[in-house]
Amino acid sequence: MTQTQQETKPVITPTQLLEHWQGHRALTRRVIEAFPEKELFNYSIGGMRTCAALIQELLAIAVPGLRQIALESTEKLDEDSKDINSKGNLLQLWDEATPELNRLWALIPEEKFQQPTVTFGQYEGTVWSSILYFIDNEIHHRGQAYVYLRSLGIEPPYFWER
Amino acid sequence: MTQTQQETKPVITPTQLLEHWQGHRALTRRVIEAFPEKELFNYSIGGMRTCAALIQELLAIAVPGLRQIALESTEKLDEDSKDINSKGNLLQLWDEATPELNRLWALIPEEKFQQPTVTFGQYEGTVWSSILYFIDNEIHHRGQAYVYLRSLGIEPPYFWER
Repeated sequence: MTQTQQETKPVITPTQLLEHWQGHRALTRRVIEAFPEKELFNYSIGGMRTCAALIQELLAIAVPGLRQIALESTEKLDEDSKDINSKGNLLQLWDEATPELNRLWALIPEEKFQQPTVTFGQYEGTVWSSILYFIDNEIHHRGQAYVYLRSLGIEPPYFWER
Repeated sequence: MTQTQQETKPVITPTQLLEHWQGHRALTRRVIEAFPEKELFNYSIGGMRTCAALIQELLAIAVPGLRQIALESTEKLDEDSKDINSKGNLLQLWDEATPELNRLWALIPEEKFQQPTVTFGQYEGTVWSSILYFIDNEIHHRGQAYVYLRSLGIEPPYFWER
């Protein structure tokens, strides 16, 4: 097949990137579920934040982060705004974010991914690099939650299950 | 500006994805450097692998994984093949992989990213999803190494430094 400019396939499409993120979010949800409720809010290692606090950071980033990309709104990184005190609470907020991310994603035109953006008033990048940063940050903190679970004698979900 | 089909911008280009990976690899290198040599090979939490063993997995995936994508070679996941017993050793292998990944990357035509592939004889996906898996797996294990460092009283490098 002759490849012309127009036939060049993208590395990844917007829909694939969204599915990739939501797949990671499904795994993170299983990690929240795997935690005993008490340790979710009380347990940590080496002076780090609890798993619940890490999850609050992820919640503070995902929808507000994507909202400012999709709607050009100005957002603050507000990790402590919500009075989250139970696993059910945390899972409910997680589940509410899921369709909201899908809704916002549909508002981002394909050509926007390469455009510059500043998230939370200070983080400069492009739309694609900002979204990958949101995802990478989730993977990073979830990896830390895996160590918490292991040190509690609990087997975490398989990393490749999405 | 009127957007026509041909003008549609990609979400991410192959060069950007490579730079993204190498940026993560530069951060992982700083994590290896931050470890005291003894703890790099001896320390772990909750029965998990040592940081050195996690890094050996990453080395076993990166170049062989990309080689099979670029050259259609058949590769085994061989995490214990190398007699790695010092931090210098590990860093040297890490640094040897860096230009080799760049070299192999240049051999992957853009239209290949959407094609199906099977890595290490068993992991089915597309080229893009396989490469993102390699990167995500590195972020995941590096996040675990951050907890090891914190529990040793050592401040890890900033996550956003690439």
